[in-house]
Formats: sequence, C-alpha cells, structure tokens
Amino acid sequence: MKPPSALSLLVDALRVLPGVGPKSAQRMAYHLMQHDREGAERLGGALLGATRRLRHCERCNTFTEAEVCEMCLDEERDPSLLCVVETPADQIMLEQTLTYRGLYFVLMGRLSPLDGIGPREIHFDKLLQRATDGVVREVMLATNFTNEGEATAHYLGQTLKARGLVVTRLARGVPAGGELEYVDAGTIARAVLDRRTV
Amino acid sequence: MKPPSALSLLVDALRVLPGVGPKSAQRMAYHLMQHDREGAERLGGALLGATRRLRHCERCNTFTEAEVCEMCLDEERDPSLLCVVETPADQIMLEQTLTYRGLYFVLMGRLSPLDGIGPREIHFDKLLQRATDGVVREVMLATNFTNEGEATAHYLGQTLKARGLVVTRLARGVPAGGELEYVDAGTIARAVLDRRTV
Ligand SMILES: [Zn+2]
Ligand SMILES: [Zn+2]
Repeated sequence: MKPPSALSLLVDALRVLPGVGPKSAQRMAYHLMQHDREGAERLGGALLGATRRLRHCERCNTFTEAEVCEMCLDEERDPSLLCVVETPADQIMLEQTLTYRGLYFVLMGRLSPLDGIGPREIHFDKLLQRATDGVVREVMLATNFTNEGEATAHYLGQTLKARGLVVTRLARGVPAGGELEYVDAGTIARAVLDRRTV
Repeated sequence: MKPPSALSLLVDALRVLPGVGPKSAQRMAYHLMQHDREGAERLGGALLGATRRLRHCERCNTFTEAEVCEMCLDEERDPSLLCVVETPADQIMLEQTLTYRGLYFVLMGRLSPLDGIGPREIHFDKLLQRATDGVVREVMLATNFTNEGEATAHYLGQTLKARGLVVTRLARGVPAGGELEYVDAGTIARAVLDRRTV
C-alpha cells in the first residue's frame, strides 16, 4: 500500500523546513490535512508569494519586494552612518531600541569557515561597495557577540579600516555569547550609546 | 520599520504548523528565503495540491484522491475482516507486518473527552455503518496501547459487540504505553497473530 501521491509529496516537501525529519513531516501533514486545511492553503500561498516577490535590497541586502527597501529610501535617516547586522531579525531588534538613526547592511549570515561560509557568502563585496560610496563615514559593527559574530566583526573591521572608514563596534553591554534577538532592548540601547572605535 | 508584507505573511502562516512558535517561524522563513527558495516553492505547491486533491475515502476514511481508496477496491483483501486504526501511519505499520489481509477503517484520531474529541470526531457513525454492512464479521481493534487508545478500543468494542459483531483486540505483544508507529514490525506481527476476542 502506498499513501496517495498528493500526501506523500506533501510529507516529502515538508522536510525542506529546518529541523523537520520524516516522522514530524508526516505528523505535520496529517495534522494539516485533518485539522487545518485552511491554514495549509494559506501557508501554501504565502510560500509561493514570498518566493516570487521577495528579493534582496540593492543597497542594504535585506529582504524586500522592491529594488530598494523602504528604510534605505527614508530621507529622515542619517546616511553617513551604516550599521552591519547578521540578519533582518537583528535589524528589527536594533530598531526597537530607538537609539539608532543611521542605515543598515544585512549580511544574511556570519563568517563560518568550517561551514564553508566565507566573505562571498556574507556579501562582502556588496558591503564594501556600499560602505565606500563617499557618504558613509562610520560603519557600526553589530554582529552577534558569539565566536563567529566576533570573528566576522574582526574581519570586517580590519578590511573597512584599511579603506579609511571609521569603524565602531557595539559596546560590550551585550552579554558575552549573547545573540541580539534574544537580548532585551535596554541592554542593546546602552550598547549602541557606548559603541567604541575598533 | 516593518518587514516586507510577503515575508511577514509567510512568518505568520508558518505558525499553522504544530509546535512552531513565532521565533522558529521567523527562522524557518529566513532560512527558506535565503537558502532554499526552490524547496519553499515545492512545499507551497505540495500544500496547495494536497488541500485541493485529498479527501477521505468513503469506505475506510483514510486520505485518498478518489472517492474510494485503492486498498478498499483491492479484491484480494478479505472483506469480512475490518481493522480499526487511529491514523494512516498506523495502517502503514500494520501493512508492513504482512500478517493482515483484511480491510481497514481509519478513525483519524482517538477518543479524548478532555480535548473535546468524542465519538463524532472519530467518525463513529461512519465506522458503525461500515462494520454493519453485512459482509464484515470481525472487527479487529488496533488503536494504540496508550490510555486514550485503550479507552477508544473499549468504547468501540462495547458498541460493536452490541451489534452482534465479533470484536478482537491486538494481543498485548505491543508494549504498554507504546504507539504503533514506533514499534518494530516483528512485535506487531505477533500481536496480530495473537489477537484476542474482547
Ligand atoms: Zn535596503
Ligand atoms: Zn478506503
């Protein structure tokens, strides 16, 4: 006996989700088909909509549906200040502190040589081009305070300083080993204010 | 700053998956958009395909794309023997033992009064109609050997016996507290052979 093909295709496809193995894929599929077909349809549409509509901002590299994202077009922001974060979630956290009024660059990752993630994978050339546009004066490194985040900050700091830019790092108000998106906004706010030259 | 709408729709929609909270939905969305758009598109299509094509078999209640599933139409199976299981996964496990040649009824759940799951939710009327078609002689209860599975077997056994049917239960070769889909096929095979009248 084989399960119907639409069902086995679904079980198989659910395994693209990080951390979902064959058993939990099967449970998810049965759950959706038995108890939440409306939700399954909504998720299906959202996945197709996102893959078709989302691209990377030409300036800051975050996800956007336009060529350039809303924040990069915001004339109220200070274009001389560029904050480098690992992920869009980190950017959201920083915005919630209400202490930063510059622009961003989102690496969409962090250096991790053992996983094959080098400068190319974190879009280093795009960052370099962005940071050397003649308007940016200071680059604030806000990668995570994990080993990989620190190594990424070190690499970026060395390279950007060599181009004559002022490079700062969030102050160590952020707990060592901490990941920005799990830290409270008050701690991050102080770290922004105390940022130091690298 | 708000995330782009296609992205926030996706993060929101991923929460229909059992056990997925806001943080893991965000991680899943970023992962798919950053590293596996092809997989995301495949999953989206599979979800829409499954919601549109899957229905319940009119005879055995399992998922199928036709009115009646392939197994119910298989003339090699013994129509006088009906095995009741909780889920399609349990049915697949039983088939793998190669010890059972009758037909099935899939409850798509188990009695659980505290969760509001009563006879209606496990399609009891449909089972009753199926079991009293004049052809079925024996109903073999293969619900799980958990508290809820045992209670379900007890309820079904009482009601079906009152209709004059022979009702059997898988032998207690299945470890107490065990869930069929996690038990090895050999143990289940012996339990099928040793099934006892209730
Ligand atoms: Zn942008
Ligand atoms: Zn069927």
